[in-house]
Amino acid sequence: MSVTAPAPRVAGAPSGGEDALAALTALLRPDLEACNRLIVERMQSPVALIPQVAAHIVAAGGKRLRPLLTLAASRLCGYPGTEAGGTRHVALAACVEFIHTATLLHDDVVDESALRRGRASANALFGNKPSVLVGDFLFARAFQLMTDDGSLEVLSILARASATIAEGEVLQLVTANDTATTEAQYLEVIDGKTAALFAAATRVGAVLAERPAAEAEALDRYGRSLGVAFQLVDDALDYSAVEAELGKTVGDDFREGKITLPVLLAFERGDESERGFWRRTLEAQEQREGDLGQAIALMQRHGALADTVRRARHYGDEALEALRAFPDAPMRRAMADIVEFCIARAR
Amino acid sequence: MSVTAPAPRVAGAPSGGEDALAALTALLRPDLEACNRLIVERMQSPVALIPQVAAHIVAAGGKRLRPLLTLAASRLCGYPGTEAGGTRHVALAACVEFIHTATLLHDDVVDESALRRGRASANALFGNKPSVLVGDFLFARAFQLMTDDGSLEVLSILARASATIAEGEVLQLVTANDTATTEAQYLEVIDGKTAALFAAATRVGAVLAERPAAEAEALDRYGRSLGVAFQLVDDALDYSAVEAELGKTVGDDFREGKITLPVLLAFERGDESERGFWRRTLEAQEQREGDLGQAIALMQRHGALADTVRRARHYGDEALEALRAFPDAPMRRAMADIVEFCIARAR
Repeated sequence: MSVTAPAPRVAGAPSGGEDALAALTALLRPDLEACNRLIVERMQSPVALIPQVAAHIVAAGGKRLRPLLTLAASRLCGYPGTEAGGTRHVALAACVEFIHTATLLHDDVVDESALRRGRASANALFGNKPSVLVGDFLFARAFQLMTDDGSLEVLSILARASATIAEGEVLQLVTANDTATTEAQYLEVIDGKTAALFAAATRVGAVLAERPAAEAEALDRYGRSLGVAFQLVDDALDYSAVEAELGKTVGDDFREGKITLPVLLAFERGDESERGFWRRTLEAQEQREGDLGQAIALMQRHGALADTVRRARHYGDEALEALRAFPDAPMRRAMADIVEFCIARAR
Repeated sequence: MSVTAPAPRVAGAPSGGEDALAALTALLRPDLEACNRLIVERMQSPVALIPQVAAHIVAAGGKRLRPLLTLAASRLCGYPGTEAGGTRHVALAACVEFIHTATLLHDDVVDESALRRGRASANALFGNKPSVLVGDFLFARAFQLMTDDGSLEVLSILARASATIAEGEVLQLVTANDTATTEAQYLEVIDGKTAALFAAATRVGAVLAERPAAEAEALDRYGRSLGVAFQLVDDALDYSAVEAELGKTVGDDFREGKITLPVLLAFERGDESERGFWRRTLEAQEQREGDLGQAIALMQRHGALADTVRRARHYGDEALEALRAFPDAPMRRAMADIVEFCIARAR
């Protein structure tokens, strides 16, 4: 993408990302199907509203990217698949999805989002109250599943990740509307709110398979870098995606005054009048018709979207590097291709 | 209290309840002080807003009733006190308080409460977003503390209690505004939202001290019955307390359309025109000036508040009965007196 290109899309990776997700899903089909069954089974409750709200977000759609990563990392480390009697990776993949879903339910309340994956969000459909409480329920269920699994090391990894996610979300609140946010602070936010769960989701694979600490570290690095790349692309897409494809409203971050990397880069590279625009729209939250278009134009003028994706590619390369700790195999190749999938969304 | 008495207070237990709390606190002072230190230490985060919000609710005030119960139950079972090198009961008491605090933060968001313990609620002061997220943080911290403690049995007890609390809260949402709620459904709500954590808080004491299952069961019964009694009195106080003493706004439940036992009893015993009043005010939520006074008058006419406290006394007796599994000792007597404390609030 040229820095002056008018099209509101981010250039970058070649196509083929979706194929990578399909390939990993195919490789793990029996495991993922067992995970989906467990998710549906364990979100049940005699209180009927709980599975209703949970089904809306957990059972319907979603790429299952995080649980797929847990399944993949476990199998990469030699943990047996479902056909060979492996069940723990399935349970932990369900935990990871429950924790993720709980944070989505709470995020949508915090962000007052009306849409999630292109459909009405749970809070829009059921109200904020059930969203908060069903999030709590799913979080507790995740810890019940982990306790049943019985590994204190896994519990420690996912409890720490859960605390870090909350810290990242609060830090995001604190930096919202503040154009003086530094890139380091922004990276801390996304490391917490997104990358911590990716890192935990992959790290537990090595724990399950009782592999040496170096492999757990390598999977943590893979997951964390992948999570950062994923979030950077997400933040670029918020200013560039085609709504129907992304399944979320373009401009959400802008309307909420979230300070993401594209904004930071455009602010940093802009002149005083441009900085005035960002301060008015994001700090003072005085937004007028046409402001989103103007924001996108400024980002393009300064290459902010292309550079955000470029950084995502850097973190993607780190994720690929971490995979070198493992011998070449179909699972490793599929996990490498997932890096491409995360970045190619910004096509 | 006579059924026609005009005073808006609930009669019942003799005084002396506060003394019981002071006595238990005195008996456990070094343990409680260690617990308070641990709470302050473990609610820290590099994200400054987290300890700020947490301090507002966790560090400032509150009776610490639930952690006191964990400390007391542990000591009753022979677990050594802080002076004798015991530390696990302190850590688990802090977990219990973190879980409780997380639910308070989320409850206040769900109930849109402006006051908590007589001060501005966290959501009123900091907004709903930090309240949701700091609640999540404290919940995760509780599980980190439990993981550090390392008992899978304790983890299982508190994870199950956490899921049950969320179920009780959702059930309360579902039955809100519904005057056709049965007493059994109401008891299910309070068993979940309140009694489950009391039961878990006391049960873990027997687990720590490695006592036989019968003692764990007895402590579970003590905590659960005490929790039900506590909540019944709370529900009566919402229509009868002196605001400054209770530290919450009288009439909160009424304004929110919560269906509690005093309402159920008054509804059941009322004539058609009275039922019309309850349907208008709680189901249709059409409330006018003077309606709260009218609600209190109807409850008094039918002895609904006195009978609610009478039922609390029944559950209190069950709690006392459960304590018989343990030999007479100062700690057992102090725990028995706490039953009186919970009920005597409705004086």
